[in-house]
Amino acid sequence: MIKTDILIIGAGPTGLFTVFEAGLLKLKCHLIDALPQPGGQCSEIYPKKPIYDIPAFPEILAGDLVDNLMKQIAPFQPGFTLGERAETIEKQDDGSFIVTTNKGTQHHAPIVAIAGGLGSFEPRKPPIPNLANYEDHGVAYMIRDPEMYRNKRVVIAGGGDSALDWSIFLASIAESVTLVHRRNEFRGALDSVEKVQELKNQGKIELITPAEVVDVVGDRQVAGVSIKQGAEVFNKPCDAFIPLFGLAPKLGPIADWGLEIEKNAIKVDNTLDYQTNIPGIYAIGDVNTYPGKLKLILCGFHEATLMCQSAYQRIFPDKRYVMKYTTVGGVDGFDGSRKEAPKAVVKKIE
Amino acid sequence: MIKTDILIIGAGPTGLFTVFEAGLLKLKCHLIDALPQPGGQCSEIYPKKPIYDIPAFPEILAGDLVDNLMKQIAPFQPGFTLGERAETIEKQDDGSFIVTTNKGTQHHAPIVAIAGGLGSFEPRKPPIPNLANYEDHGVAYMIRDPEMYRNKRVVIAGGGDSALDWSIFLASIAESVTLVHRRNEFRGALDSVEKVQELKNQGKIELITPAEVVDVVGDRQVAGVSIKQGAEVFNKPCDAFIPLFGLAPKLGPIADWGLEIEKNAIKVDNTLDYQTNIPGIYAIGDVNTYPGKLKLILCGFHEATLMCQSAYQRIFPDKRYVMKYTTVGGVDGFDGSRKEAPKAVVKKIE
Repeated sequence: MIKTDILIIGAGPTGLFTVFEAGLLKLKCHLIDALPQPGGQCSEIYPKKPIYDIPAFPEILAGDLVDNLMKQIAPFQPGFTLGERAETIEKQDDGSFIVTTNKGTQHHAPIVAIAGGLGSFEPRKPPIPNLANYEDHGVAYMIRDPEMYRNKRVVIAGGGDSALDWSIFLASIAESVTLVHRRNEFRGALDSVEKVQELKNQGKIELITPAEVVDVVGDRQVAGVSIKQGAEVFNKPCDAFIPLFGLAPKLGPIADWGLEIEKNAIKVDNTLDYQTNIPGIYAIGDVNTYPGKLKLILCGFHEATLMCQSAYQRIFPDKRYVMKYTTVGGVDGFDGSRKEAPKAVVKKIE
Repeated sequence: MIKTDILIIGAGPTGLFTVFEAGLLKLKCHLIDALPQPGGQCSEIYPKKPIYDIPAFPEILAGDLVDNLMKQIAPFQPGFTLGERAETIEKQDDGSFIVTTNKGTQHHAPIVAIAGGLGSFEPRKPPIPNLANYEDHGVAYMIRDPEMYRNKRVVIAGGGDSALDWSIFLASIAESVTLVHRRNEFRGALDSVEKVQELKNQGKIELITPAEVVDVVGDRQVAGVSIKQGAEVFNKPCDAFIPLFGLAPKLGPIADWGLEIEKNAIKVDNTLDYQTNIPGIYAIGDVNTYPGKLKLILCGFHEATLMCQSAYQRIFPDKRYVMKYTTVGGVDGFDGSRKEAPKAVVKKIE
């Protein structure tokens, strides 16, 4: 059982920044995310795209935003349960919560902060009968650990950035990479498309277009796929089949936790601490809704900050926290690090 | 008469970021600040100090934060009335406002956003009789334009960072710099104290300590000051006398605008748009108060953002603004500039 002060569901920018604000209050955090790495959409969907409305960044790539947040929160040593989806929540007699993931990992905390963005990102699966039977046996919809594919024969299906970028990456470690797409045209960053063209010319990526994977074959483990090209259907032996048809956010199991839901988002009772209808459970960032809500990262940062103050009061009802500016009080990490402004000296001039 | 869509009182971080969010809504902004440059406290009081709690900046100097914000808002071409204090406000028949500064500059706008921080920073003045008579005639409490002191004989009084830093700066352009302080010890950044020691050793700064300026002499224009050192009082001829004893924030004339004031801050009616009791006047950032208010820069950014949406609805009651993410929609500056994410291509691979 993982124990923490604030259990954060969703490791996007809002969830990550919560660790920092909680840390200033000496509260520890642990984050659960269905994606295999922190950063939410910013890492998974558009890491190389610029964002222009993060205050004091005239422009920042989404991936860099996440890297910066990870650096900022590092002193507060957050825990992570990644690649697992928060599935159930049980309120304990003492008012605390146990959250269990789809893989059975249990987390116990007095405070739950749902920073789930638009929901957990679920892969769009192609309509191939019995595809599900091969999941975790050669079929994957997201690449959690590229090393799994070293020296393997990999078939990737899809025509967007993920399909292009993973084909490029795996071409350098897999035994073979075959990219199947139902059109001849790919849609993605120009340099990714050009790189795939180059690797194809070098014989490092086999391209089969316009075509579709219509079946998976193998005894428990993937042994090959059936590919339909025009009127012809042929077998392509392989060890792994990775359909990359994008991710779609789903509020998912959280929708059944007894929280008030409105417009596919969690209603918060007020904009003073972003608490939900269940005391001790907060909703911050894109996952929440209130009158005038804007789904902007900068709003999530503010909501996380106010939420931490309220969480602190809930955990320590008798203490009164007096806010200190970081410029004045510095930042004390849980790792023993300390950041502080250079002190003024009092010195004689003679 | 200066005309704009949103008149922002206070050019600190919150006021500056308002320009960006307003710009996304195609609203123009003009800022008034009592200080001679934008950035509020960050520029005037602690430009070289690090801030640790700006999201995605593990550390940023306050001065750099302001520089970044100025770069971010540049495409929206804000206007500035600097070195003047907003003094009076008059509501017009059409619901718009005219704000006049202490120097008589008039501004007309349908929306007023007070982002006044802790108030306008007023200099602490030494208790020297008839000092006020020499203001703008050789006596100044803030340095607006250092060039004014080229080849002049300058006497500075004070023992902190401002006194040290301006002594260092003016030593390179003034005919002479004399620094008077009532103690032998100075309080400031170590390198500033050491630099003054060095300039003193080189004869480029004259140091008179422990001593006090007790009188200003001259016919309308400063001709010298009387300095008391121990039992002795002597005259020091000079062209300028600059007492730098720090700045203290005062809510000032805004306190008399009919706004609800609580704990030296402006009460906002709700946390949904940060409007005050006078429709059309908003209060954002450190200057406002509501239950659970935290005086943090990151909260000001959020408040500014929500406020701009409300201002837009007030100006265009019949239009409905549909928010576009900057990553998707890009940013169109009023200067004709355009920032946008690199577009995906649709390209055949053959």
